[in-house]
Amino acid sequence: MTSPRDLSIGIDIGGTKVAGGIVDADGRVLARARADTPERSQSPQVVEDTIVGVVDDLIAAADGPVATVGIGAAGFVAADRATIVFAPHLSWRHEPLRDALAQRINLPIFIDNDANAAIWAEGKFGAARGEHHVVMVNLGTGIGGGILMGGRMIRGRYGIAGEFGHMQVVPDGQRCECGNRGCWEQYASGNALVREARGLMMAHSPVVRDLAARVGGDPQLLTGPLITQAAKEGDPIAVELLADIGHWLGLGIANLAAALDPGMFVIGGGVSAAGDLLLGPARTTFRRHLTGRGYRPEATIAVAQLGNEAGLIGAADLARLTASGADV
Amino acid sequence: MTSPRDLSIGIDIGGTKVAGGIVDADGRVLARARADTPERSQSPQVVEDTIVGVVDDLIAAADGPVATVGIGAAGFVAADRATIVFAPHLSWRHEPLRDALAQRINLPIFIDNDANAAIWAEGKFGAARGEHHVVMVNLGTGIGGGILMGGRMIRGRYGIAGEFGHMQVVPDGQRCECGNRGCWEQYASGNALVREARGLMMAHSPVVRDLAARVGGDPQLLTGPLITQAAKEGDPIAVELLADIGHWLGLGIANLAAALDPGMFVIGGGVSAAGDLLLGPARTTFRRHLTGRGYRPEATIAVAQLGNEAGLIGAADLARLTASGADV
Repeated sequence: MTSPRDLSIGIDIGGTKVAGGIVDADGRVLARARADTPERSQSPQVVEDTIVGVVDDLIAAADGPVATVGIGAAGFVAADRATIVFAPHLSWRHEPLRDALAQRINLPIFIDNDANAAIWAEGKFGAARGEHHVVMVNLGTGIGGGILMGGRMIRGRYGIAGEFGHMQVVPDGQRCECGNRGCWEQYASGNALVREARGLMMAHSPVVRDLAARVGGDPQLLTGPLITQAAKEGDPIAVELLADIGHWLGLGIANLAAALDPGMFVIGGGVSAAGDLLLGPARTTFRRHLTGRGYRPEATIAVAQLGNEAGLIGAADLARLTASGADV
Repeated sequence: MTSPRDLSIGIDIGGTKVAGGIVDADGRVLARARADTPERSQSPQVVEDTIVGVVDDLIAAADGPVATVGIGAAGFVAADRATIVFAPHLSWRHEPLRDALAQRINLPIFIDNDANAAIWAEGKFGAARGEHHVVMVNLGTGIGGGILMGGRMIRGRYGIAGEFGHMQVVPDGQRCECGNRGCWEQYASGNALVREARGLMMAHSPVVRDLAARVGGDPQLLTGPLITQAAKEGDPIAVELLADIGHWLGLGIANLAAALDPGMFVIGGGVSAAGDLLLGPARTTFRRHLTGRGYRPEATIAVAQLGNEAGLIGAADLARLTASGADV
């Protein structure tokens, strides 16, 4: 049995980076290591090699014994917390990741979805400390999410709750890679922001003159951070585009409030760096669309505090707690 | 302390009836009593008188001692399980119902939302026995709902989770009494079914000739049960109208599956009497719109088994369990 104060390694496997850290019981990251995520064409073995390499680097760097390894992965993690059913950026299909890693890492291994790991970290160490009913919405290239109710993770029957990005908000709307149309993440994500700006630039709209100048007229060079920067510097169309994303964010979280009634929404992911340029419009739409408004207490909407380390911090903490016997 | 096998009274306060029953520990209703729901213009005192009257009738009819009283109410029940924040059909606004009743009923009193009571009953005694991750969708005049995850009720931070009917499915869509537009219950409910049929009749569409004949040409006499009956007898437009409701039902539960990943959806409420005329199209749309289809196990979709007694059976059982110390 491990101690609940032991050091734990957290690994966050995203679309581009495998980021790892040694995390103490207060959620502090004491050491870091990272590697590129292998291409989708690489075998599961190569991904495992990458994870094991990051873990070995961290154990070598650790200033004391490490008790557990927690892994947050972008993908469907099965209810057994051992198998990755599907990961959009990787070659995993029903991959028995925990057993494969257990043959190479001599520590208890815990696996969860990356957004679940992130909400756990924000709930325990970040924006939602003290709030036991939380919904997290991560706005990155798509939308990921997690649910904490009564202080417990809600993972669903098959382990894949929280896929908010694929709730339909527009009938027959924008195509989504998931195969459907009108998914929320086609309207409120970094990809949506960039798509709209590119569309205007490719239509030679004069309103994007400033944005076009920033990328030498090449729409492919537009990125979410660049548009956010332009908005912060006062470019009116960049402000407008972020406000549109914020509107759709507010609408979607009003829907989630109707279903789940959290005390707080935590907004994470890269797009959340836009701060009030995003959250101002989101709050306005949320209040306008919340059912029962005027009769009910309203959830607060907060920006995530742990940035892109939330996933590895949460994975490390969930691993530590699970190994010491907690049901999390 | 009461025994977990004691008899319990369940009361379901709906828009038109206050229905009560004596319920044993196996979910059987041993005796029944009912009264009309007081008009919205009546004071909270009158509603309490009605509840107390039904409880007294049941205690008089009971074949043994009754230990607890559970109440399921159509409305927002606060997280304290004592206060009704708002009830659309009644005069309650922040009504301290439990304390008011406790002065007149000398038994432990438990209060919950009616849809929560219904899903508890279906989960323990009905369609979802053995399934611990359940979402219930009640199609009546509107849409009510409940969530059971890991065998526990999910009520949210302020007690009002499960208001699925007010998730927006169509931007700028049909007006809803909640003040918003495009709410799910404007597309997948008994009211939606009747509204569409009436619209066709008032436009003198020839396709509703059969339906019009059934009501002597008066659109106001159209009801959900009448349209369902016509569909069961083969009237093509009635079949079509139910299929449209089923389509929207399937779409909305695909959204809920993305968010909550239940093992089963239980469809209750009056419209569910249409059976496969509703659920056939619902299943088709659900499978077509479920994100991750092909990579994930799919929730089953079942019709509720306890009919309109689910609410009182669940309220009685939750009262019994709460009084014997369970956290439900």
